[in-house]
Amino acid sequence: MLIVQKYGGTSVGTIERIGAVAKRVKRAADQGHRLVIVVSAMSGETNKLVEMAHSFSKTPATREMDMLLSSGERVTCALLAIALNELGCSAIAMTGRQAGIVTDSVHTKARIREIPCEPVLSKVGDGKIVVIAGFQGVTPEGDVTTLGRGGSDLTAVAIAGAIKADLCEIYTDVDGVYTTDPRIEEKAKKLNLICYDEMLEFASLGAKVLQNRSVELAKKLSVKVITRNSFNENEGTTIMDEEEFMEKPVVSGIALDKNQARVSLIGVADRPGIAAEIFGVLANASINVDMIVQTVGQDEKTNIDFTIPLAELEQTKSALAGFGAALGRQEFDDTVAKVSIIGVGMKSHSGVAARMFSALAKENINILMISTSEIKISVVIANKYGELAVRTLHAAYELDK
Amino acid sequence: MLIVQKYGGTSVGTIERIGAVAKRVKRAADQGHRLVIVVSAMSGETNKLVEMAHSFSKTPATREMDMLLSSGERVTCALLAIALNELGCSAIAMTGRQAGIVTDSVHTKARIREIPCEPVLSKVGDGKIVVIAGFQGVTPEGDVTTLGRGGSDLTAVAIAGAIKADLCEIYTDVDGVYTTDPRIEEKAKKLNLICYDEMLEFASLGAKVLQNRSVELAKKLSVKVITRNSFNENEGTTIMDEEEFMEKPVVSGIALDKNQARVSLIGVADRPGIAAEIFGVLANASINVDMIVQTVGQDEKTNIDFTIPLAELEQTKSALAGFGAALGRQEFDDTVAKVSIIGVGMKSHSGVAARMFSALAKENINILMISTSEIKISVVIANKYGELAVRTLHAAYELDK
Repeated sequence: MLIVQKYGGTSVGTIERIGAVAKRVKRAADQGHRLVIVVSAMSGETNKLVEMAHSFSKTPATREMDMLLSSGERVTCALLAIALNELGCSAIAMTGRQAGIVTDSVHTKARIREIPCEPVLSKVGDGKIVVIAGFQGVTPEGDVTTLGRGGSDLTAVAIAGAIKADLCEIYTDVDGVYTTDPRIEEKAKKLNLICYDEMLEFASLGAKVLQNRSVELAKKLSVKVITRNSFNENEGTTIMDEEEFMEKPVVSGIALDKNQARVSLIGVADRPGIAAEIFGVLANASINVDMIVQTVGQDEKTNIDFTIPLAELEQTKSALAGFGAALGRQEFDDTVAKVSIIGVGMKSHSGVAARMFSALAKENINILMISTSEIKISVVIANKYGELAVRTLHAAYELDK
Repeated sequence: MLIVQKYGGTSVGTIERIGAVAKRVKRAADQGHRLVIVVSAMSGETNKLVEMAHSFSKTPATREMDMLLSSGERVTCALLAIALNELGCSAIAMTGRQAGIVTDSVHTKARIREIPCEPVLSKVGDGKIVVIAGFQGVTPEGDVTTLGRGGSDLTAVAIAGAIKADLCEIYTDVDGVYTTDPRIEEKAKKLNLICYDEMLEFASLGAKVLQNRSVELAKKLSVKVITRNSFNENEGTTIMDEEEFMEKPVVSGIALDKNQARVSLIGVADRPGIAAEIFGVLANASINVDMIVQTVGQDEKTNIDFTIPLAELEQTKSALAGFGAALGRQEFDDTVAKVSIIGVGMKSHSGVAARMFSALAKENINILMISTSEIKISVVIANKYGELAVRTLHAAYELDK
């Protein structure tokens, strides 16, 4: 098979770890696979570089930041190629530029424009293991760019798509995607299989294995992704197209997000366009509104509830202050949590939501807001019940079985 | 003026030092100069990278070593540009590739093939301070190369030549070139002016401010070089063409090299080609023979004396073993030192050598070998007299005046 493997910061965090990764790559090569390896910077290195830059400027020039930050991945890339050659594997190190990764010019969060398959495939064709510095590309003018958070994952998925790899393995320091956070519910089980859309929901709810941008790209390019642990030999979680699932689970997992705040506008003047105005102002202030619920009120007034990230609460208050009395009474609640059940199978099953609400009711957990999508149901509850709700729902949908 | 400034590893060794360099650059900019800055890696960084590579392989792939080693200069280059922007100077960071430095493909010790002036000059024309990562270039195929020891000096001189800079300032942690090592003779004086050829002799005799490759290139491209101390405001030593000297000093300085060994071949069969054979064998063994003296011996035999680096003594013994009796009696002396007087003015002055010999004789220092060139006289003496000889000659030529 033609396989892209990506190793994250902790997986290449020390000389010993890079040596261990080299041995793992060699095993795959010995099994006859053709390999392209994408690496992150050694863990801590990027933060160190950022700190150095910030000691000079709070807002360092982004073009120069990219030259600075891209150096960390070059180090691991070169070292891994050296280690592989020492093990008798013929390996070649390539920067993002050498791999042909061209991006736009939005420094520190560039978007990939194109990756020709030729630079990498021609070396693979020569029998080489190609080791690529992740997280980076160049503008058409040849300036170094970086791809922002999770950028090395993005490099791996994009390369896998460009060369039509059979598989893209993302190595981290966890075993894969779990039915819920094992620190909350010790019966949490690792999922063997998950579809792109479910993974998107998990990622946006805080599961750290893979960021949304990479999942979206994998879906778009139909790249089969496996997230695995580089510290053991466990099987990992495969992320693939829903169509390929033999049996679709009703609920795949439970997610908890405790960094939420709820804003209630009670008795808003019910005139056309008021909602658009409110959320337009919040969008201009770069506040990420999540759930929105509008209910009919009394006396030609309406009630609007929405959630925002806890950290953006003060900004939200300022942004809304301009409206004055038009918004009615404003309540802000920073003691809420969002619990979600996620599962591509719920599309075709009835009663999924009802089971959720009754399970929570049995534990006397009051539901403050509800929001549903095709593959997710989220409820807002009091923060203190968050963990209990996760365990209750984990059992209700028999995820420990 | 259009000035190239180069800052070495200790000059940019810490965040504080990079900040100090930024202020120095700003002062030059405020004086109206147009500036191109070349930087080394922070001191210690390159060694750290080499150590990491050597933990995997004693002979790491050189192409990958270059990708690894070139990352250190990129870090300082980006940081200095960020620091300059923060001070209100419009600066742009460029890698060796972006500055247009094309080299051959001899990785880890590449030679510069060409530097077009356009990439750097066009940015200077835009009013930018251009900060260039030293020590690196790219092959015509786009692979990163490094220039070997002293590579950042070479970058600076080559860039200065390409853009026809008025001046190339090399900043280190010493004030310039001295009449002799101040640790040996405390009356040693800093030279204000020295010509390329003298500097070549000083460099080959161990003065650390500038390597021969850079001096040779400066001479070839007629680049006026000043070596200065980045830790103070002292004037430094200007290295320029002999023709521009108003008054040529007879002797500019004294150099001592204690890492020498002497080989004496006494009673070599005096047949044509024997010397060529001996030194051919040594050259094949990569032994750097320095001084060679041949004297007439007795009975159709000849005597050949030569010096080699102390570290290559054992290799030399092995290399000569193959000749057997043809070399006569072989003596090896690892207790010698070489003392040299250097001065472009001695070409046109008589009696320079005589004064050297008589000064040494007065101190009862026995001369074992003598070698002369147009601008240098070297003698080999017993190691233990090395420092005394330096002080004696320093006084004899009135270098403390």
